[in-house]
Amino acid sequence: MITILSNDTHGVVAPALPGAGVLRPLGLDEVTITGGFWGERQHVNATATIDHCDEWEQRVGWIDNFAAAAEGSVAATRTGREFSDSDVYKLVEAMAWEVARTGDPHLEARIQELAQMFERVQEPDGYLSTKYGRPGQAPRYSDLAWGHELYCYGHLIQAAVARLRSGHDDTLVRVALRAADHMCEAFGPDGIQSVCGHAEVEVALVELYRATGVERYLALAKLFVERRGTGTLPDIEFGREYFQDDIPVREATVLRGHAVRALYLTAGVVDLALETKDDELLDAARGQFATTLARRTYLTGGMGSHHQDEAYGDDFELPPDRSYCETCAGVGSVMVAWRLALATGDLSYGDVVERALYNVVATSPAADGRAFFYTNPLHKRVPGQEAEADEVSPRALSRLRAPWFEVSCCPTNVARTFASLAGYVATATDAGVQIHQLAPCSIQTRLSGGDVRLAVATRYPDDGDVVVRVVEAPEGPWELSLRVPSWAQGSATLDGVPVPGAVARVSDLRAGEEVRLSLPMRVRVTAPDQRIDAVRGCLAFERGPLVLCLESTDLPDGLEVDDVVLAEPTAHDVDGRAHVALRRVEHDDRAWPYAEHGTGRAEGDTLTAALVPYYSWANRGPSTMRVWIPQG
Amino acid sequence: MITILSNDTHGVVAPALPGAGVLRPLGLDEVTITGGFWGERQHVNATATIDHCDEWEQRVGWIDNFAAAAEGSVAATRTGREFSDSDVYKLVEAMAWEVARTGDPHLEARIQELAQMFERVQEPDGYLSTKYGRPGQAPRYSDLAWGHELYCYGHLIQAAVARLRSGHDDTLVRVALRAADHMCEAFGPDGIQSVCGHAEVEVALVELYRATGVERYLALAKLFVERRGTGTLPDIEFGREYFQDDIPVREATVLRGHAVRALYLTAGVVDLALETKDDELLDAARGQFATTLARRTYLTGGMGSHHQDEAYGDDFELPPDRSYCETCAGVGSVMVAWRLALATGDLSYGDVVERALYNVVATSPAADGRAFFYTNPLHKRVPGQEAEADEVSPRALSRLRAPWFEVSCCPTNVARTFASLAGYVATATDAGVQIHQLAPCSIQTRLSGGDVRLAVATRYPDDGDVVVRVVEAPEGPWELSLRVPSWAQGSATLDGVPVPGAVARVSDLRAGEEVRLSLPMRVRVTAPDQRIDAVRGCLAFERGPLVLCLESTDLPDGLEVDDVVLAEPTAHDVDGRAHVALRRVEHDDRAWPYAEHGTGRAEGDTLTAALVPYYSWANRGPSTMRVWIPQG
Repeated sequence: MITILSNDTHGVVAPALPGAGVLRPLGLDEVTITGGFWGERQHVNATATIDHCDEWEQRVGWIDNFAAAAEGSVAATRTGREFSDSDVYKLVEAMAWEVARTGDPHLEARIQELAQMFERVQEPDGYLSTKYGRPGQAPRYSDLAWGHELYCYGHLIQAAVARLRSGHDDTLVRVALRAADHMCEAFGPDGIQSVCGHAEVEVALVELYRATGVERYLALAKLFVERRGTGTLPDIEFGREYFQDDIPVREATVLRGHAVRALYLTAGVVDLALETKDDELLDAARGQFATTLARRTYLTGGMGSHHQDEAYGDDFELPPDRSYCETCAGVGSVMVAWRLALATGDLSYGDVVERALYNVVATSPAADGRAFFYTNPLHKRVPGQEAEADEVSPRALSRLRAPWFEVSCCPTNVARTFASLAGYVATATDAGVQIHQLAPCSIQTRLSGGDVRLAVATRYPDDGDVVVRVVEAPEGPWELSLRVPSWAQGSATLDGVPVPGAVARVSDLRAGEEVRLSLPMRVRVTAPDQRIDAVRGCLAFERGPLVLCLESTDLPDGLEVDDVVLAEPTAHDVDGRAHVALRRVEHDDRAWPYAEHGTGRAEGDTLTAALVPYYSWANRGPSTMRVWIPQG
Repeated sequence: MITILSNDTHGVVAPALPGAGVLRPLGLDEVTITGGFWGERQHVNATATIDHCDEWEQRVGWIDNFAAAAEGSVAATRTGREFSDSDVYKLVEAMAWEVARTGDPHLEARIQELAQMFERVQEPDGYLSTKYGRPGQAPRYSDLAWGHELYCYGHLIQAAVARLRSGHDDTLVRVALRAADHMCEAFGPDGIQSVCGHAEVEVALVELYRATGVERYLALAKLFVERRGTGTLPDIEFGREYFQDDIPVREATVLRGHAVRALYLTAGVVDLALETKDDELLDAARGQFATTLARRTYLTGGMGSHHQDEAYGDDFELPPDRSYCETCAGVGSVMVAWRLALATGDLSYGDVVERALYNVVATSPAADGRAFFYTNPLHKRVPGQEAEADEVSPRALSRLRAPWFEVSCCPTNVARTFASLAGYVATATDAGVQIHQLAPCSIQTRLSGGDVRLAVATRYPDDGDVVVRVVEAPEGPWELSLRVPSWAQGSATLDGVPVPGAVARVSDLRAGEEVRLSLPMRVRVTAPDQRIDAVRGCLAFERGPLVLCLESTDLPDGLEVDDVVLAEPTAHDVDGRAHVALRRVEHDDRAWPYAEHGTGRAEGDTLTAALVPYYSWANRGPSTMRVWIPQG
């Protein structure tokens, strides 16, 4: 049953802020990441990625589309795909969280500038799009399957929610509210009885309801969720499951179709279930996500096995070489898992958030924050080409990280996620604080017993020690909880004492006291479920939250990763890096690659090679790479 | 070096008729398939498939497009994709071979009717398309990448060649010649300096040159082949390799990009090389095809690993569940392999033809010839839906065989191939006859020493005995050669005597004499090259030319194919059917499908199941299926 939160959540600067559920998220005003792996990424995001995205959106004309629309000339000049407006809104959302985090005046001014441009484009009735509705353009809502108008509103609204939550009731908010009110009219009970081909507006509408208290936004989100799966969208080549319009949300058992669409929808479904106290709906989302994790998720936490429709495959269809694992699906998975953690109080959803953040979201940007992976395969047979620094790339071509894409949803998604990352670290209840993500940070919030302030020090994931020092403690009883990742369960210790289960708990710490959570950081050897055909007979290596990989850069003599197999199912630590013993395979280059079973094969020399974290691959020039290595 | 054929090839009723090369194909007037596996398929093709295609092309409006174009109304009413004209031409080609084979007067009349319709649509300058060039339509040749105008001409010309070869110089031929002459003008040295986005016209133009002796058709084919790979087509999301416009034909080392495009192009390249005595070009095509067979071909002979762009994957990227293996690529592979056999005299190309015919082309049509597979995967995890008998299907959705597709190139490709199948059975030189495909048939031709007539009796592939009886023999010395498939080499016998190598030869047989080739038909257990990651640890089973598969229909208790593994790496014959011992696997339905290496798994009961020929799968209702079965 859904618990009603007794905490006052107004004014918490967080991307998701349920009015019900078990845990209250701590906002960007309560948690500050102070360095380490994620601090570095927030720094690069603030100093490079956000400006990079702004520059590229100007360069490819997606921002100019708004200027041209305001002047009335856009029908002739518009560039970009149907949904390019959304990438401008997502950039503004990233800026909004960054302003909330650092108060950056340059970004604050840019938000105002862009919001005024949006306002000039908005029609008197609230409709807003650079793509539809003018002479020379298709009529508004004439292509719900592919037009993405409501999807764009969703991203506009999420940006506005970021502004509202961080105390800004400004132009952007007014534009988003007018668009939302227009949508209530156009798609409400007496309006168009359909949904958008790309879910996203659902999660945004619930959040707008939460931020404003306006019930009609929640009611419209509910209408959209209940309509989906009833076949109001056309049957297309990929089937209606592409839009999740094949089966009503309450009846579905697993995520399917386009992965990002499915995950955004599910985030909205969890939010809606919480606000409407709909246990059946919450259970549906939990069950679908659980089955998806058990059967349709890569070791990296990545989702999506099909390039053609950017979609989930069948259960256990998880080819490492064709893993799509779109960066945005990584973000979507974080959104869903985090909401389920808040809804259920189950800290183990933090494992899902952590896996996707370290191995999908963090894999996308280059070290300099100015190039990105759109897809994140687990096996690369042929070295990818270097992308041109000044060229727009196709989204899923066999290239290294690229500065921008024809469909460029991922860079701004990384930017908004990194800017708001502190919002995913910790939660509170009346009686305690829960730390979900292990990062150096400061935490301050108010519990029923009074204020608490914590300082978390750790080199995680380079090191498994996490020290929490209490700077200020409430008067009465309170509890500190730390998530113990599943791979550490059974061997984690708290101040040297073994921790039972998935959560380390300590009660009533006083100011000046500290506790040390220690996690085993040995390299783990991981085998796949035998139903995952595509990696049968292979092993992978993990250390802490990081999936490791073998990259040809670390092999001698121009060897490629497909020229070697594992000589033994284990890894060795050498100077803090994982190394594996490999055997070179002698290939019989016969004319037909299938032969009578039992015909022998030659065994080659053995060698040793270092593994690298998967997120860091392809930062040293073109290479071949594999996460799953065949057993020799 | 390319040998000049001394045989007179005029008037041979065959789909490919080189003026040079080592072997002369025997035509439909020289070889008659008299029954058996292929005789049955020719019968179904003649009595069901050709009419079925005609009915569907009327029903979906692709034939009406021509009527509307003749009346001038097509811009408003046209249905189908850019290339739908080509499917009408391919249907006419199938009819033309069928008329050549049987003289069917109904089909002869239909050819005339359709040809007259084409003639009415053709512009005075020879341009012909229902899609382009009229008011309300895009201008002709305004979209060479996707417009398919030259691709359509290619199929028109191939139909006309079928008519010319079978002695009909009629309306269809006149239309095709006018189109070809127009093309010479529009795309010749002073014309548009580009190529069609879909290769096909090259192979057709060489054949038209062969059938007419008009040199400019050969010259234009040469221009098209030499231009391709020089980047005259746009760079698209899939890269220029999609069109084979990434690398000049002479420099490429493997087939890549869209598989059907690559194979049609290569067929044309072989033909061009032969007619222009261009050894370098022939070697390029041979090398590319050899590497493709060694690294990019499924056990079935199918080609194409990517759904997104219907394309080859990287070397050894051969996922059985996502094998595209388009039926048309099977036809294209037969076209290339057959041409290389003629060019080089190497009978082992017959292995490639045989594998693709039995396991790709014959897999496509249902037993009744009125439903088809477009893609031919080697592993099906979820039972496909039954397609609706009266509905057009998407090409690659997870359905069973469907009556028609939105892109419906495959049904007519099967129809034209089956109608002309006798043209792929045997060849001759001055001094002998070579039998490439083992089928019951009668063969008659003239050698330098006189006429020869042969009667081939066999139940192949149900049985491995092939008896060739000489009905009439030349006076002087002559030689009969029979291809010994690679899997039979070392254990095949000719009249009880072991045959060394890949060809069984016997000299100077006289009328009334017969020889018996015996091939071992035991079930073979086949293992993949270890670089084929996707089927690591699995085995497949083959009998003769047939790839076998496990279908859930043959498993007890509602088991699916992914619930079992091989209990032993062998098969047993029970009543002439291959059976395998399987072990049921107990799945641990954990929340995360990756676990520490070495954690045990339960072993289930053993059971026995029959295998079925792959071509026959999915004829008994929805099922799961796998060709490659994991070793337990």
